[in-house]
Amino acid sequence: MQKKYAIGIDLGGTNLRVGLVSSEGKIIRKIKEPTSREILDSILKASGTLISDEVRGIGLGIAGLVDREGGKILISPNLPLIEGVHIVDVIRKRFDVPVCIENDANTAAIGEKWVGAGKEFSNFVLFTLGTGIGGGIIYNKKLLSVSAELGHMTIDANGEKCPCGNNGCLEVYASARAILSKAVNALEKGRESLLKGCCGGNFYKLTTEDVYRIALDGDSLARETLRDAGRYLGIGIANIINLMSPEAIILTGGLIGAWNIYIQEAIKEASRRAFKELYDAVKIVPSVLKDDAGVIGAAGLVFEEIE
Amino acid sequence: MQKKYAIGIDLGGTNLRVGLVSSEGKIIRKIKEPTSREILDSILKASGTLISDEVRGIGLGIAGLVDREGGKILISPNLPLIEGVHIVDVIRKRFDVPVCIENDANTAAIGEKWVGAGKEFSNFVLFTLGTGIGGGIIYNKKLLSVSAELGHMTIDANGEKCPCGNNGCLEVYASARAILSKAVNALEKGRESLLKGCCGGNFYKLTTEDVYRIALDGDSLARETLRDAGRYLGIGIANIINLMSPEAIILTGGLIGAWNIYIQEAIKEASRRAFKELYDAVKIVPSVLKDDAGVIGAAGLVFEEIE
Repeated sequence: MQKKYAIGIDLGGTNLRVGLVSSEGKIIRKIKEPTSREILDSILKASGTLISDEVRGIGLGIAGLVDREGGKILISPNLPLIEGVHIVDVIRKRFDVPVCIENDANTAAIGEKWVGAGKEFSNFVLFTLGTGIGGGIIYNKKLLSVSAELGHMTIDANGEKCPCGNNGCLEVYASARAILSKAVNALEKGRESLLKGCCGGNFYKLTTEDVYRIALDGDSLARETLRDAGRYLGIGIANIINLMSPEAIILTGGLIGAWNIYIQEAIKEASRRAFKELYDAVKIVPSVLKDDAGVIGAAGLVFEEIE
Repeated sequence: MQKKYAIGIDLGGTNLRVGLVSSEGKIIRKIKEPTSREILDSILKASGTLISDEVRGIGLGIAGLVDREGGKILISPNLPLIEGVHIVDVIRKRFDVPVCIENDANTAAIGEKWVGAGKEFSNFVLFTLGTGIGGGIIYNKKLLSVSAELGHMTIDANGEKCPCGNNGCLEVYASARAILSKAVNALEKGRESLLKGCCGGNFYKLTTEDVYRIALDGDSLARETLRDAGRYLGIGIANIINLMSPEAIILTGGLIGAWNIYIQEAIKEASRRAFKELYDAVKIVPSVLKDDAGVIGAAGLVFEEIE
């Protein structure tokens, strides 16, 4: 039996995506559901639906700090229930196929390299811009198997507290969580804004899509919030350009929907801060695979690592 | 004729070092002189003294942003005279041997990996702590051929101007230049300190060695200056730990002489800021090769790249 498929699992903070992926990087079938308390059961059930003799192995991309050799998650602020669980063992025992594990932003980088926006580049850094900020680094066409916690660079020495324990992390200023918290804080203080009329007046239900839409209508609080966050993102991008001299920065995650304000501002700030020679050599581009990058990349990990 | 030697050239901001290095990474003969306006002549003369039929090639490590393919320096704030010069061509034509070029902190990292403090580690990041701050990244036992401009990460978004054009770079807070400028500023403002009595009363001639010596005597300005700089260095180290999850951070350059205050403070700050799991897995150690790392690493580049 030719083992021409792999199952890719992408477990982010809010959604579980499981896909059957071909050796050409095409998703054949996909299951998506919100993460829940029974997350391990959901993973096993979805994988069970897709498994067959043609599956070479299962690749897992999980939000958090991964112990690759130990086959488990060390820390996952958004998925505390699976911290310390030997998830690789559990899945391997159930399906009797090789299983490998990576950080979810790292698998997204593999996906973009394989069949996405990174196909043409040997060296790039992917930023995942969502509730939090993560990343993956491709060097000489391969994933650097490093933490790449791009959201947890200090960019403001005496800055605000981050849930990770540090102060002034990029994520505190440039993530979706940061954008919403800044907007809500301003509204709570009585700032006038079209954002107030959103969500039937309950601004605690605001999404970054609302903020962007209303920013495009010219609302000053919404514009200012996205611009500020973008400026901080630009600092993070400039840092990575100065450190890694990549050919490309690939941006993915929900926030790239706000490209014309948030990302444009980030690009402007990065161009101001990074070494000119390095900035001129880098392309800053959006993801091609979008939400599928993680599933495809997790499957790619299987094709790469398991002969 | 067995080509068992390579010439390693280390051209920093203040000194030129040229060495004949064996294939075991031992320096057989070394020439050292201050950099001057005739730097290219000095390089050719020193290399001419060491060249023989047994020399396989010449490796160059130069302070600045290097164009490896083009064989030249793009920017070198401390060596503006050689910016844009096709230095690899010039040396190759003169001696008719292969010549390769790298950033000087990158060659120092190769040196430490080959026969120094990095021998036992597959993944480490080297910080060069001198007038400026540079770095080199070893991954899977090999140099990552990237810019690794560790001194030019923004760690303070709205911070002081850096000569590179950016604001809030690590180098502005944690380098020897930063330490001396902070101390002199305080003295100019009339701050009482034993540093005043240094250098026959001319505190513009202070060195970081003076500051450390007087800090050990208990002087509060000297101690405070080194501690502040160390704290900022710790931010830079924590950022690199969160990004690269290395097994080791290797510290080199003149400032590691101030280990008991400056570096100790950096280690404390890094431990507070980096992800605990990553910090616990990293060793922070001094260079073994000291000033020889660059020469040995530049020669190592030859043995690595030229079969």
